[in-house]
Amino acid sequence: MSKANRFLHYFLSHRDVTNELISKIGKEHYQYQPTETSMPASKLATHILESFYKFAAAAKEGHLAPFQEKVEEESDLQKLAEIYTDKTRQILESLSDRDLEREIDVSAMVGRNMTARQFLQLALDHEVHHKGALFVYVREMGHTDLPMFMKRS
Amino acid sequence: MSKANRFLHYFLSHRDVTNELISKIGKEHYQYQPTETSMPASKLATHILESFYKFAAAAKEGHLAPFQEKVEEESDLQKLAEIYTDKTRQILESLSDRDLEREIDVSAMVGRNMTARQFLQLALDHEVHHKGALFVYVREMGHTDLPMFMKRS
Repeated sequence: MSKANRFLHYFLSHRDVTNELISKIGKEHYQYQPTETSMPASKLATHILESFYKFAAAAKEGHLAPFQEKVEEESDLQKLAEIYTDKTRQILESLSDRDLEREIDVSAMVGRNMTARQFLQLALDHEVHHKGALFVYVREMGHTDLPMFMKRS
Repeated sequence: MSKANRFLHYFLSHRDVTNELISKIGKEHYQYQPTETSMPASKLATHILESFYKFAAAAKEGHLAPFQEKVEEESDLQKLAEIYTDKTRQILESLSDRDLEREIDVSAMVGRNMTARQFLQLALDHEVHHKGALFVYVREMGHTDLPMFMKRS
């Protein structure tokens, strides 16, 4: 398996869980927030989905411009998850091992340039972090039958 | 910088944040749980600290025996964080790039063998996941001045 393909599987081993959690958020809980200063559930889920897509697009293009892209307008979280997971998967599928090793211009965001692979790891860490919070949200919504934190890849 | 050294910095960029969150958990909140089925705060923090240490020891030794090791007896979470962070750092500092590439026998736990580097990534993902949950706990304890999810490494 190529490194690029391995990363795609690694991403999906977490994204499948993100999407499973999102599928448990009923519309009546979209505005749920654990505390007054917490992101509401809908905003948190949207932030996870949009962010990884932008990270992946930036890794592909070699610069931060994709972070300025217009975002998807879809108020149903499950549909939004499908749209962004497909778009993100398409980008990751298009990457070669050589693309992953390329240094990209992301210093304005992270203080230094990185290889695309390193930047994608940051994207992954960002998703795992927020997904960890989402587990607490979903449990607080009353769900107790929750998946492991990642699927076996 | 060697790959092993890079991994150590990567680990610390997350562990520093874990420890900062732990420092905010007052003893009156050790048994705090967001829901009845959630791990209490003290158990969650301990689980994060013990787990990474065991993952690192297993990566070093090449097999899963360290997961059976006796755990530290320390009821003060901040002291426990210091003890385990030191022990874990020592192991990571002792690893060479060659150690990281070695295939280790972890199939009983994860269904297949992995390189030590891959197993350590799993350890990292595990910490980031539970740390993401810990952010919600600490916010629910009344803290609003919280760090970023990782320090710049």
